[in-house]
Amino acid sequence: MVGSHDTAAAVRLTVGVIGLGLIGGSLARRLAIRGVSVVAWNHRPHPYAQAEADGIRCMRTLAELVEAQPEVIVLCNPLKAMPAILGELRPLLEPYQDITLTDVGSVKMMVRDQVRDAGLAGRYVGAHPMAGNELSGWAAAAPALYDNALWAMTVDGDTDYRRFLAVARMITDDAGNRVIVLDDDTHDRAAALISHMPHVVATALINQLTDDPDRNIAAALAAGSWRDMTRVALTDPDRTRAMVEEDADNVERLLRMMAARLTEVADELHGADAGAIAAFFADGQPFRDYKSAVRSGADGDGPVFDLTIPAEGWQAALLDSARRGEHILRFGDDYTACVQRRSAM
Amino acid sequence: MVGSHDTAAAVRLTVGVIGLGLIGGSLARRLAIRGVSVVAWNHRPHPYAQAEADGIRCMRTLAELVEAQPEVIVLCNPLKAMPAILGELRPLLEPYQDITLTDVGSVKMMVRDQVRDAGLAGRYVGAHPMAGNELSGWAAAAPALYDNALWAMTVDGDTDYRRFLAVARMITDDAGNRVIVLDDDTHDRAAALISHMPHVVATALINQLTDDPDRNIAAALAAGSWRDMTRVALTDPDRTRAMVEEDADNVERLLRMMAARLTEVADELHGADAGAIAAFFADGQPFRDYKSAVRSGADGDGPVFDLTIPAEGWQAALLDSARRGEHILRFGDDYTACVQRRSAM
Repeated sequence: MVGSHDTAAAVRLTVGVIGLGLIGGSLARRLAIRGVSVVAWNHRPHPYAQAEADGIRCMRTLAELVEAQPEVIVLCNPLKAMPAILGELRPLLEPYQDITLTDVGSVKMMVRDQVRDAGLAGRYVGAHPMAGNELSGWAAAAPALYDNALWAMTVDGDTDYRRFLAVARMITDDAGNRVIVLDDDTHDRAAALISHMPHVVATALINQLTDDPDRNIAAALAAGSWRDMTRVALTDPDRTRAMVEEDADNVERLLRMMAARLTEVADELHGADAGAIAAFFADGQPFRDYKSAVRSGADGDGPVFDLTIPAEGWQAALLDSARRGEHILRFGDDYTACVQRRSAM
Repeated sequence: MVGSHDTAAAVRLTVGVIGLGLIGGSLARRLAIRGVSVVAWNHRPHPYAQAEADGIRCMRTLAELVEAQPEVIVLCNPLKAMPAILGELRPLLEPYQDITLTDVGSVKMMVRDQVRDAGLAGRYVGAHPMAGNELSGWAAAAPALYDNALWAMTVDGDTDYRRFLAVARMITDDAGNRVIVLDDDTHDRAAALISHMPHVVATALINQLTDDPDRNIAAALAAGSWRDMTRVALTDPDRTRAMVEEDADNVERLLRMMAARLTEVADELHGADAGAIAAFFADGQPFRDYKSAVRSGADGDGPVFDLTIPAEGWQAALLDSARRGEHILRFGDDYTACVQRRSAM
C-alpha cells in the first residue's frame, strides 16, 4: 500500500490561488478548511474580507503572491485573462524555480499553448476539476463544490514528474479528490463530447423552438425531457460560446458526426427498415449498463490496488489506467499510485 | 364569469377508464378521490383489489364497462392495443350513442386514424395530458401525477362541441386541470419538437459516447450537463422508439432541421465569422426570456378573463387562444370559457 506523504507535507509551504470565482474560491476555501496554507489574489479585492475570515491570506499583488513561495500556484482566472496574468507572472517567478503552475480550465490544449507562449511550459501541469454549477463568483463559492470530485490532470512528454506529483498531491491529499491523467488532446476531445458539443445541441434545440411559429404551443407542451435537455442553453450563452470556441476543432468534428447520426435516423424513419431504427436505439446500451452500474452504488466499491508507474513513459501508463476506468486515490513517493477500479464500458 | 356546471354534473353518470397503467391509473385514482364516479377495465385484473379500495369500480369485461354508461370513456391503453380495443368497443357502444370516447396518447393523428378506421370517429375527442414520469404501471400510479397538469385536447372540423365539452369538463372540473385546444397536426408537430425529436437527440448523444474509443474517459468527465441531456436516453428505449415511429414524419423533418443547424455551427466554427456564432447563441433568447418569466412565478398570476367562443369555427378560435399562450381553466354552457393568459414568446 502506498505510504503517507507526511514528509512532503512537512516541507510544503502553501498553495497559491489566482482568481476567487466559483471554482477558485471554492478550492481556496476547501483547502483552507482542510488545514492547507492558502494565499490568494483576485483581480478585484471585494472577496478579500470574507476570504481572510475563512483563513485565506489575500495578497494585494501577484508579486506578493509569488513572494509567499507557494509550492503550487493554481490559475483559476478566466481563460481570457490568462495571457496577461502569465505575462505578469513570468518575471515574478524567475527567482522561484520550485513553484509549479497549474490551472482549472475546461480546455487544456489552449492553456498549454498560452503557458508555452509565456515561456512557462517547463513548470506547468494541467488540471481540470469536474466541479461547478450554474452559478459564478465568490458569493457562490463553497468547499462542498469539490465533494467527491474527480480531476483530470493533463501532461505531455516534457512534464516533470516531481512537478506532476506536487499538483497531484494538492488534489488528492489536500483537496481530498480523485485524479485521472490524460494528454491535452484526449482531454479536450472527451470534454467536447460530454460538454462542449452537447451545449451547442441544447442551444440548437431552443433555437428550433424559438423559430417555430407555434412556439407558445410547443413550450406549453414541454415536460421534463425538454427541460432537462435545454437547461444548459438557458444560462450564460456568452460563457457557453467562449467554451465552444476554445475547443472549436473538436466541437466542429463532433457536431458533424451528430448531424450525420440525426440524418441517418431521419433516413431510416423515411425508409422501411425497422431493423435500422432498432439498431440505433440499441447502440448506446453499453452506456445504459454503465450508468446502471454507477447508480447501483457499485462504482464506489470497486477494488483498490497499487499501481506501479514506469519512470519512463509514466504519461502513457497513466493514460492507459484512465482508459481502463481507474481513478487514482493518491500517489506514493516512489512511482506508485493507489488506484480504484470504477465502472467501465 | 363562467357559471358552474352543477346541472351537467348532476346528470353525469360516471367516467370510464380503460387501462390502469401509470397514466390511466393515476387519472382514475385522481377522479375517484375528487368524488367522481369511476369505472375501469384493465387487460389484466392485478390492480383491481387496490383500485376497488380506492373507490374505482373495476369491470371484468369491456361490455360491463360500457353497460355502466359512462358519459366519457378514456382510452389509457397502450397505442398498440388500440385497434383491438376499438374493434371490441364498436358493437358494444352501438346502443349507447351518448358515450364519448377520448384518449391520453402522446400522438394524436394516429389515434384519430385508428378511431376512424374503427368507425367511431363521430364520438371521439382527442386528449393528451402533460403528465408522466420515468415509471410505468399501476404500482406507480398516483393522483398527484396530474397536479397542475395541462392537457392538450385535439379536435377536427367534424368534432361535436357537446362531446368536446364533456371531455373538457372531465379535465377541468373533474380532474382540476387546464386545457389548450389544438388540431392533431399542430399537436403532433409540437410534441415532436419538444419530446420525440429530443429523445432521438439524447440517444444519438449516448451512441456518440459509446462509439468513442475513449468512452470511459469521457464518461468519467461527464457532469451535470451530460447527465441532464442524456437522461431520457437511458430508460426504456423500446418505448422511445415506439413514440418516435408513431410520429415519424414530424420527427424526420425536425431531425433534418437539427442536423442542418448543427452543420451550420460546425461550418461557422470552421470559418472566421464570429458574428455568425454570436447570432446562433442569441437566436434562442426569446425562449430564455420566456423561461425566466415562467420561473419567476409570474406565469401563474396571469390575468383571468372570459373568452366568447363562436359556434361556427370554435376549433380555430380555440387554436388561436392556444397560440396566444392562453390556458382554459373551465368551460361554460353557452360557448364561453374562462381562460388565463400565461407567459408567451
